[in-house]
Amino acid sequence: MNFPKETKAAILVEQKAPLEIRNIQLPQQLEYGHVLVKVHYSGICGSQLGEIDGVKGHDPFLPHLLGHEGSGEVMATGAGVNTVSPGDKVVMHWRKGAGIESQVPKYMWEDKPVNAGFVTTFNEHAVVSENRVTKIPESFPMDIAPLFGCAVTTGLGVINNNAKLKIGESIVVFGAGGVGLNVIQGASMVSGYPIIAVDIFDSRLALAKKFGATHLINSQNKDPEKAIRKLTGKKGADVVVDNTGNTDVINLAYQLTSPDGKTILVGVPRKGDHISIYSLPLHFGKQIIGSHGGETDPAKDIPNYIKLYENNKLKLNDLITDTFELKDINSAIDGIRNGTISGRCLIKMDNNGT
Amino acid sequence: MNFPKETKAAILVEQKAPLEIRNIQLPQQLEYGHVLVKVHYSGICGSQLGEIDGVKGHDPFLPHLLGHEGSGEVMATGAGVNTVSPGDKVVMHWRKGAGIESQVPKYMWEDKPVNAGFVTTFNEHAVVSENRVTKIPESFPMDIAPLFGCAVTTGLGVINNNAKLKIGESIVVFGAGGVGLNVIQGASMVSGYPIIAVDIFDSRLALAKKFGATHLINSQNKDPEKAIRKLTGKKGADVVVDNTGNTDVINLAYQLTSPDGKTILVGVPRKGDHISIYSLPLHFGKQIIGSHGGETDPAKDIPNYIKLYENNKLKLNDLITDTFELKDINSAIDGIRNGTISGRCLIKMDNNGT
Ligand SMILES: [Zn+2]
Ligand SMILES: [Zn+2]
Repeated sequence: MNFPKETKAAILVEQKAPLEIRNIQLPQQLEYGHVLVKVHYSGICGSQLGEIDGVKGHDPFLPHLLGHEGSGEVMATGAGVNTVSPGDKVVMHWRKGAGIESQVPKYMWEDKPVNAGFVTTFNEHAVVSENRVTKIPESFPMDIAPLFGCAVTTGLGVINNNAKLKIGESIVVFGAGGVGLNVIQGASMVSGYPIIAVDIFDSRLALAKKFGATHLINSQNKDPEKAIRKLTGKKGADVVVDNTGNTDVINLAYQLTSPDGKTILVGVPRKGDHISIYSLPLHFGKQIIGSHGGETDPAKDIPNYIKLYENNKLKLNDLITDTFELKDINSAIDGIRNGTISGRCLIKMDNNGT
Repeated sequence: MNFPKETKAAILVEQKAPLEIRNIQLPQQLEYGHVLVKVHYSGICGSQLGEIDGVKGHDPFLPHLLGHEGSGEVMATGAGVNTVSPGDKVVMHWRKGAGIESQVPKYMWEDKPVNAGFVTTFNEHAVVSENRVTKIPESFPMDIAPLFGCAVTTGLGVINNNAKLKIGESIVVFGAGGVGLNVIQGASMVSGYPIIAVDIFDSRLALAKKFGATHLINSQNKDPEKAIRKLTGKKGADVVVDNTGNTDVINLAYQLTSPDGKTILVGVPRKGDHISIYSLPLHFGKQIIGSHGGETDPAKDIPNYIKLYENNKLKLNDLITDTFELKDINSAIDGIRNGTISGRCLIKMDNNGT
């Protein structure tokens, strides 16, 4: 194998600024638990928009790489790695799966270090930790696989592990982006009813319907609280999921949760933003739960979801509405922000399939 | 209202003998928490076959009435009752719902008492405990409603509350009778995969397929253990449900459960019959769980399931394959035993709708 010396990457150099597309130097030796992946496709997730916007405050790791859902092919493995081998097709994911958690890789950019986490996907080659990749069948479509890195696994995980939604229970989903759409898909897959999607973009609500939402509310056009109470009755919904991280939405989500229901927080609030909730109902069965990637277990869940997809029981093709090249990633990010991109947006790498 | 003096009932007089169809005297006054129901339809459940066969041993309550899933109309209510009123259509169920738990009613038969529980449905009029009836919409089909008394609520409850089956998890269901078919339907409604049905009657397996089984095994024709391991791999299934109560089947079900999976016992074993299991895996995540009617909560679940049925998200019509008159109930019971009745069998009362 020709161990590549350098690779193209989108780098976060400064918060609230466009990413810089540059060549960086790859580490020339793989350490214990490292896997070198030729990235084929990366998804763009709300978390990366949050990192760029600096919602968590000061970022001590700048400059650094980004991206946490992708697909690719293993080029080489470091010592100790035994869950994947060169030539294997893999999903790249941010939740821990099987295998070693390695040290983070040491990339260089113009003779200075550029930071990266256990997995990054906005770069054409990536050195990642063994436990951030999961092998998939050779024949599995590489432009679908990135969805298992975050959007689908988080969304279905919210239903499986946080909401534990039961047959016939009601659910409200605020925010129908990549994760929200899969929360909706998951709710539909476990026969929740009604499944109420709330968003500010009609294009996303149209997708939400495709993925199983039974009722749609554009909160720009009508008061979501009134509209939701009309559907759930006075007591509210069994489960309310917030994907926005907006504290006003979270407060409303909590109010709309029934006395024995669950408010699930998926979207991450801005640093310092507080929610204001009446805590008494928490003593009587109401729950407010922070989700961490839907508590998904990639090693178990990805193979199960592949099985479902192969048997036409999981909708994935319609999730991806846009594909951009890495050099145009800033345009892709703009499109997600302004709602012209309604579903998941993929970045297709130049070296895809080569 | 003409308070009826007597009513026709199928009475268990002796174990392992046909039921006797006789007129019995109704109590002439309703006590605290009592509800008088004109029964329209009753289902026949495996439990009643077990009672007739004496699987639980000596029956100190003989002679007694039977049946625990039905539909009917409220004719009168005793003191304290406020969840239903005369004229209301109701499901009759054996799990506790909302309202008072009354004393059991005092029926007489040829001047001697005939026993009855909090609810019985093999009789044309029944005095039942308020918490054993749940009001349903006026327009709901009365020949579908009995399914909410046991078969459907138990089956879906097993999935919701005992198995807590997650999207993409595998499940094996031994016994595809009324409850088993609804365990299968529930597994399909929450996107389990594969859903493996095992029975000794091809007619039931054909129904199982209709209700969402992805793989069918007739255990008369092939070794179920081999066939199941071929589908689930060596580790076995995430969930294995026994509806038979047969200890050999239970032992096999436990063996076929994965190391972190659940064996769910729904069928009741014969009195004194022991299972023989290797208990060590119970220390490492394997579970064996006895289900009590799927822990269903009629007051919450029946309205949810009605909502799903009305929105075409719950299959019920195909469940009922046969309907008999009360006078022919012994033929119905024979048909269930020998497999000529493949789905749920209803008893239609003479006074139905009059
Ligand atoms: Zn993400
Ligand atoms: Zn029953």
